[in-house]
Amino acid sequence: MTERVLPVLEDLQEAWCRISPHLHRTPVMSSHLLDQLTGANVFFKCEHLQKAGAFKARGAINAVLSLDDDAAAAGVATHSSGNHGAALAMAASARNIPAHIVMPSNAPRVKKEAVAAYGGLIIECEPTLAARESTVATVIEQTGAHEVHPYNDSRIIAGQGTAMLELLEQVEDLDVVVVPVGGGGLLAGTAIAVKESNSNIEVVAVEPEGADDAFRSFGLGELQPQNNPQTIADGLRAGLGELNFDIIRKHVDTILTVPDTVIVQAMQLQWTRMKQLVEPSGAVSFAGLLEHPERFRQRRVGVVVSGGNVDLDNLPW
Amino acid sequence: MTERVLPVLEDLQEAWCRISPHLHRTPVMSSHLLDQLTGANVFFKCEHLQKAGAFKARGAINAVLSLDDDAAAAGVATHSSGNHGAALAMAASARNIPAHIVMPSNAPRVKKEAVAAYGGLIIECEPTLAARESTVATVIEQTGAHEVHPYNDSRIIAGQGTAMLELLEQVEDLDVVVVPVGGGGLLAGTAIAVKESNSNIEVVAVEPEGADDAFRSFGLGELQPQNNPQTIADGLRAGLGELNFDIIRKHVDTILTVPDTVIVQAMQLQWTRMKQLVEPSGAVSFAGLLEHPERFRQRRVGVVVSGGNVDLDNLPW
Repeated sequence: MTERVLPVLEDLQEAWCRISPHLHRTPVMSSHLLDQLTGANVFFKCEHLQKAGAFKARGAINAVLSLDDDAAAAGVATHSSGNHGAALAMAASARNIPAHIVMPSNAPRVKKEAVAAYGGLIIECEPTLAARESTVATVIEQTGAHEVHPYNDSRIIAGQGTAMLELLEQVEDLDVVVVPVGGGGLLAGTAIAVKESNSNIEVVAVEPEGADDAFRSFGLGELQPQNNPQTIADGLRAGLGELNFDIIRKHVDTILTVPDTVIVQAMQLQWTRMKQLVEPSGAVSFAGLLEHPERFRQRRVGVVVSGGNVDLDNLPW
Repeated sequence: MTERVLPVLEDLQEAWCRISPHLHRTPVMSSHLLDQLTGANVFFKCEHLQKAGAFKARGAINAVLSLDDDAAAAGVATHSSGNHGAALAMAASARNIPAHIVMPSNAPRVKKEAVAAYGGLIIECEPTLAARESTVATVIEQTGAHEVHPYNDSRIIAGQGTAMLELLEQVEDLDVVVVPVGGGGLLAGTAIAVKESNSNIEVVAVEPEGADDAFRSFGLGELQPQNNPQTIADGLRAGLGELNFDIIRKHVDTILTVPDTVIVQAMQLQWTRMKQLVEPSGAVSFAGLLEHPERFRQRRVGVVVSGGNVDLDNLPW
């Protein structure tokens, strides 16, 4: 069962206490060159340096440690083609329980290796959403494992929000924070962290143009489906979750979109100027600054770099 | 005129005071996974995060700031196909004097762009050592510029040694430090920093098998020429300098060699596990741990990651 109660700041703070012993307090970097380029004062929150290479470890650890012993005994299950699978496998291994990760047969080799390296049990399925969901259902029926949804879950949202609690502690007087949006776990957690502690700070989300269901939903005030997403940012192809959308409507100021060309440009700048290996989805927030510089000029901007799990055999240039 | 007096610890400390306002105090990183892999406790000194992307900025800034106003007025000159050229251009721009950088016509585009970005004046020449040296001589004759050799110079050695002074301050109780060796600027500076402050710490150099003049010179006790170097580590193809060799004989404990295959493996591990963009020469020190693990097991090891200026269009995999 996933949990779908709206989390509040106190839930994030509890999550932070729960997960801190198991995770990195990731550093904040800045770059004189990128400040010059954007005209802003940018603070990069380096979640690509988090365990398992992405912020996803925060939510996964929080969910796994929140289970009581009975619920945990049979392990956890999810379907994932990306970072959530590896993060859940890592979290489960920290508690010494099994993690059943359903992965589409066309998932990148590097993602499968990451799940396996953390001791996750990989169950392959056809690369369709229907096959993924039915395979997870079968796994749960057979094993009694507890499902942990990658974003539409209050424990996951609370966990992801801890990255922003950290950033607010590390950098004073931010004017605006910028995060990517896919399913909406990081964005919802970020929005709670910011607005319930300092509502003057603006919360901006950035989404790839080719997977813009959050942008459309936000504009229309009603959850819209993700239709055939086409973007290099493979971590942001998921459709926005319901619980996530409820929080985003309440707390987020703006959703911007960026074309893939600018995502690649942002990624290259973070590689060559900052020497940081950022994955396409991880570069989307900075791409927002490149595409919409007028919104950020002369402001103190917190940018979440969400992940760094790149397939080196498949670079976009 | 280059300066060829043997520097001592006090020169390094003076250099440190001189250059600190202009440079980054680079962070030290560690990785649980790479510790497990090597069986050692490894502290990576991140000079790829230094300004201009390499430790070379330390020596170049020290040399430029050491000049009196008369000597500085006509600017500085060097020949370089790599990081020294960009570092000297950056240092000269900080003092607002011209930097004449002689570059072989086949130098990588990314290196030329870096020199130009710092306002360096690029003079192209044929890609031979004779052409490089004669072109620098002509430039000096015409402009009166002051030559700054990339490594066979006491101001450069003192500057490069400041990275190790920092590391010794950042990490207590190191057993051994590991640095790459090409021309020997970083190694000589490191050896002075370590042995004149705590002679119990072992100093290990690592050199590519295909450019092993330092290894041979050290073994024979006499400076040997670099014959037709063949290695992916383009920053380490230079022949060892005389002044550098004098210091290395006195202070270095061991020189190890590594094949290019292990350099590439080290680089990939630093990219995928640490999410750090390290250039081949910058991965050579860590390659030493992979190739000779028995020397480092269960010890506290300081590893200098010397640079991160990679040509992304030309990756070795």
